[in-house]
Amino acid sequence: MKSLASDNYAGAVPEVMQALLHENQDHAVAYGNDKTTNSLKEQLQLRIPSPFRLHLVFNGTGANLLALSILSKPYDAILCAETAHIYVDESTAPENLTGCRLIPLTIDHAGKLTPSIIQKAVKRRGDLHHPQIKVLSIAQPTEYGTLYTLDELRAIQEVAKKNDLLIHIDGSRLFTAITALGCSLQDIIERSGVDALSLGGTKSGMLYGEMVLIFNEHNQDSMFFHKRSMQLASKSRFISAQFLALLYNDVYKKYANIVLERTQQLAKVLRKYAAITITKPVEVNAVFAKIPASWIEPLQEILFFYIWNEAEYEVRLMCSFDTSEEEIDLFDRKLAELTR
Amino acid sequence: MKSLASDNYAGAVPEVMQALLHENQDHAVAYGNDKTTNSLKEQLQLRIPSPFRLHLVFNGTGANLLALSILSKPYDAILCAETAHIYVDESTAPENLTGCRLIPLTIDHAGKLTPSIIQKAVKRRGDLHHPQIKVLSIAQPTEYGTLYTLDELRAIQEVAKKNDLLIHIDGSRLFTAITALGCSLQDIIERSGVDALSLGGTKSGMLYGEMVLIFNEHNQDSMFFHKRSMQLASKSRFISAQFLALLYNDVYKKYANIVLERTQQLAKVLRKYAAITITKPVEVNAVFAKIPASWIEPLQEILFFYIWNEAEYEVRLMCSFDTSEEEIDLFDRKLAELTR
Amino acid sequence: MKSLASDNYAGAVPEVMQALLHENQDHAVAYGNDKTTNSLKEQLQLRIPSPFRLHLVFNGTGANLLALSILSKPYDAILCAETAHIYVDESTAPENLTGCRLIPLTIDHAGKLTPSIIQKAVKRRGDLHHPQIKVLSIAQPTEYGTLYTLDELRAIQEVAKKNDLLIHIDGSRLFTAITALGCSLQDIIERSGVDALSLGGTKSGMLYGEMVLIFNEHNQDSMFFHKRSMQLASKSRFISAQFLALLYNDVYKKYANIVLERTQQLAKVLRKYAAITITKPVEVNAVFAKIPASWIEPLQEILFFYIWNEAEYEVRLMCSFDTSEEEIDLFDRKLAELTR
Amino acid sequence: MKSLASDNYAGAVPEVMQALLHENQDHAVAYGNDKTTNSLKEQLQLRIPSPFRLHLVFNGTGANLLALSILSKPYDAILCAETAHIYVDESTAPENLTGCRLIPLTIDHAGKLTPSIIQKAVKRRGDLHHPQIKVLSIAQPTEYGTLYTLDELRAIQEVAKKNDLLIHIDGSRLFTAITALGCSLQDIIERSGVDALSLGGTKSGMLYGEMVLIFNEHNQDSMFFHKRSMQLASKSRFISAQFLALLYNDVYKKYANIVLERTQQLAKVLRKYAAITITKPVEVNAVFAKIPASWIEPLQEILFFYIWNEAEYEVRLMCSFDTSEEEIDLFDRKLAELTR
Repeated sequence: MKSLASDNYAGAVPEVMQALLHENQDHAVAYGNDKTTNSLKEQLQLRIPSPFRLHLVFNGTGANLLALSILSKPYDAILCAETAHIYVDESTAPENLTGCRLIPLTIDHAGKLTPSIIQKAVKRRGDLHHPQIKVLSIAQPTEYGTLYTLDELRAIQEVAKKNDLLIHIDGSRLFTAITALGCSLQDIIERSGVDALSLGGTKSGMLYGEMVLIFNEHNQDSMFFHKRSMQLASKSRFISAQFLALLYNDVYKKYANIVLERTQQLAKVLRKYAAITITKPVEVNAVFAKIPASWIEPLQEILFFYIWNEAEYEVRLMCSFDTSEEEIDLFDRKLAELTR
Repeated sequence: MKSLASDNYAGAVPEVMQALLHENQDHAVAYGNDKTTNSLKEQLQLRIPSPFRLHLVFNGTGANLLALSILSKPYDAILCAETAHIYVDESTAPENLTGCRLIPLTIDHAGKLTPSIIQKAVKRRGDLHHPQIKVLSIAQPTEYGTLYTLDELRAIQEVAKKNDLLIHIDGSRLFTAITALGCSLQDIIERSGVDALSLGGTKSGMLYGEMVLIFNEHNQDSMFFHKRSMQLASKSRFISAQFLALLYNDVYKKYANIVLERTQQLAKVLRKYAAITITKPVEVNAVFAKIPASWIEPLQEILFFYIWNEAEYEVRLMCSFDTSEEEIDLFDRKLAELTR
Repeated sequence: MKSLASDNYAGAVPEVMQALLHENQDHAVAYGNDKTTNSLKEQLQLRIPSPFRLHLVFNGTGANLLALSILSKPYDAILCAETAHIYVDESTAPENLTGCRLIPLTIDHAGKLTPSIIQKAVKRRGDLHHPQIKVLSIAQPTEYGTLYTLDELRAIQEVAKKNDLLIHIDGSRLFTAITALGCSLQDIIERSGVDALSLGGTKSGMLYGEMVLIFNEHNQDSMFFHKRSMQLASKSRFISAQFLALLYNDVYKKYANIVLERTQQLAKVLRKYAAITITKPVEVNAVFAKIPASWIEPLQEILFFYIWNEAEYEVRLMCSFDTSEEEIDLFDRKLAELTR
Repeated sequence: MKSLASDNYAGAVPEVMQALLHENQDHAVAYGNDKTTNSLKEQLQLRIPSPFRLHLVFNGTGANLLALSILSKPYDAILCAETAHIYVDESTAPENLTGCRLIPLTIDHAGKLTPSIIQKAVKRRGDLHHPQIKVLSIAQPTEYGTLYTLDELRAIQEVAKKNDLLIHIDGSRLFTAITALGCSLQDIIERSGVDALSLGGTKSGMLYGEMVLIFNEHNQDSMFFHKRSMQLASKSRFISAQFLALLYNDVYKKYANIVLERTQQLAKVLRKYAAITITKPVEVNAVFAKIPASWIEPLQEILFFYIWNEAEYEVRLMCSFDTSEEEIDLFDRKLAELTR
């Protein structure tokens, strides 16, 4: 089975599996005090000059909510896009771990928050009857598969700082994002002024594992939040080994480039068919498109995918590091057949 | 580095790594709706005739607390040993995920709870001012490395049922426990009448991953608790594949037998030295012993281990599936040297 | 000082004070097991034929959130108006006590939710990644000082039942609402099919105290939630005595009628001035109006009130049981003066 | 009905009722920003030279848990006596509001914690696997009706400071305690170095209402915790008015002296009977005594009281401000009759 369903339908890249096999010898101190994790910290420090605290976690929900629990108090509110993963796909875990209110904000046509949207949402600060708006969470890339430019990140940092908001970035696909933007991790960190960054491994070719990087120096107690979040792995070194494999020689970039190329190839294919409308900018690894209703099932039989918006027959086609040119050709041929 | 520190210092057994490599192809549905997970369910059903719900999670804390959150209401109390992992090693995660009070109970000399200890702890039922005592959590094996016999489990089931208590078993080392007892998984389940079982993989030779089995038919909403607990893996199939590797041909038993043999070998070594006192029954993979204070550091240099009780120079020596006869011989030679 | 600021700026009606003095003798069992509370239950049962559970609490936030915690599980979501008190004026207490997500819904021009608004909000039921939409909370009267008619309540009951939603009513001013509608408590209960009702005392002339009535028979454990909510009064009989004073001879109606008359008098006064626009239907005890910016301060000096919408100079003028005709005349004279 | 059941079976003292009647005129700003509350702050400041933040709440559980939520982080643990009200009589509200673990400590024969008991309980600081022991909560008087002397408070402050513990005092009967000790409020505050003090009104002759005084300067955000705790009264001035009535001319002392005298009278009566053993020091308003089993019911018919320890026929007899000499004489006569 191959699919265009989600990048979490794929497995792991060969370098990651190799690293796991290599790591799997001897004993190592548990809970992140091991040599491999230290190497990871060093590797990250080479790319990120500013001081940070590293927390290795299991999954994206864990990364996002650990980050938010570190930044917030239980009477606070967190601003996010109404489409944000933390808002629509993490059950009530955000409320339960942080105690905070999530406040969903309307997004622009590209699925992004803008400084003016954010500014308007900041209200009733200091009014004890209302949740205190304290954290802004954005996703890079967004749920629409779009990217904040470095300038947009700078503008968001400005509005956030002006309003004394802390910034969280959900970067479950950040490796792909920086490859697409042609920028570095540090560019994202500097331009956004991020306080807590979720940096994903699972959707970039790891079996499991994400990291949280804390830049805010006021959160020296973050390790206690880490343990409390149930996301502290005893054999943490195997998460570190996977991340090291992605960072070594910029392996992550190799696979990100593959996935970006395939996505553009797919978009190009879709644009050939007049019956199909691509609905959102194609900037990372997802193509959103309206497709004739009767085509959906036959196409899903070729490569399974999800319907994003039932009412409008809008579907989401998502490429993975292992999506092949042949698969997209297959999809193309089916489209041609359906057009006839 | 090798050690006697903890079984989570070791890596994974070869069969598990093999299974991961094998699983790492094609795409699969995320979040546990995949074929590998279905195979795991079938394999488990062959061993466990009674109906159950399966939840795959990342780590032991996740397994224990997901189980307890499913069984309890937020005004309940959970009885456990004062030494229980959920009481002493999971931060405040139990309170935060369940809302419940943990009530620590005094243990007997072997680290176990007895029916009379449990009976005495059941009080103020129906009194709304007091947390409602609802769940009993026991560990098999215990934190002392001892085992409840099947008869003891039966007796605990009786006192629990009589008092309308639900039962949770923390089985992070249950594969070793059933091997040591020469019994089956089903024996444990039947004799204990367990409502929610945490069954560990990490300490039995997996890279990561545990499971929760829910037997109580009143908990049909357990999947919502699962997602809320932040312990739902997108690529769940890789946890399933590891468990299948342990179950296939009873691979778990092969490694459990190795670890049990090494532990007995280690105990035998220690008993040779008059200066050393073994302090708890040696039934699974840990040996607790009082050792002359001055010996501790030199011995830790050979094979690192933890001090259990600082005041009494009591140490915990824990074998893993990869502890070798040679290592224990080395330890023996160092002891001989120190004795002189 | 008198004001049009809020009905919680006023004190208590004389009958309530009388009842407190009368109750203040002898001893009575604490925590609601006293004779006065039993009398209250009997009096309520005369007005409400259906079986219910009574919980006496201190304040409106306590009433609302106790009710919601009884109806929900921690993975649920609660639908409410974006203007709802539970959404905008209770800090993060809703999230913290219930664990649930609050989902804010757009309101119609009169501040009400409609069946179609509610129907559209019901989505992703059974999808474990999303909070489970389980409870609908409406306010009667609404935050706009408007009323759901009995027919509208019936229609809301229908859409709720059809979608398996439980219903909570925030009735912090329900005594005034039923007086305005000329209906009984039972009419509201029957027509709305309410599962948990917050019935306010504080804003209807009590010193403090509210009640929660639970009609849903599945919530037999509500008393445990009550204690856990920190809203169980030891000297509960003094809350009961106040409610009995309001119910005896329909005393509540006497004061509700006064407040309704004054409010209409006030609206009539405002309508005389062309520079003023009444912005919402005047149905209970609040008048919302746009007032020339320069008038606000001088008017506040006569009778203080709050600005509802800063940007549009919309103010909220709220009458209490002790608002006098003379005060409104005074306001009128000031308006005449300002007009010149 | 009169009783020796609990001081919350009694009503309010006349001065409190008078103050409520007097306060019940005009309008006042809600939520504690009123003149009466300001007067209360001034009155308190005259008695307490150090800076503090005042929070008015409804009941004792609210006071205790608001105080603890202000002092703690959700990964912390709170030390308290195994008999503490927060441990045995507040359901799971402590865990739910604070997220913290409560750690029950063994008490001495007088129901008190000692520096050595506290010192032994401080462990695993900085170890992220364990709840961080951060707050010490003591009750003055204790649940045994005994008092910490000022010297004992000093010693507790020392052990707490030495261990970087914050201190909470549950003072639901503190007015009686300071009267019994012949000391001032400030003496208690200074000697104990308390960070957050729950000061009770309900059990000292108010209808309802308690206060929390925060002395720790690091908790400038305490008002947000106040609102979140659901314990912020709209008509707060009526709580303030009651406290002012108790403070004015030291009215609290008048009633505390009555209750202390009656309690000593009662103890004297009991000591006359050889069949009765007083089991704990009689220092405030409770007498604990072992009474022949067959006497319990007949005595309860005269003046109801609770059995403290079922197994040993130990009962708790508690005097209130309105316990009369005649009632105790009546009790005496019944005892005489039963002795025959």
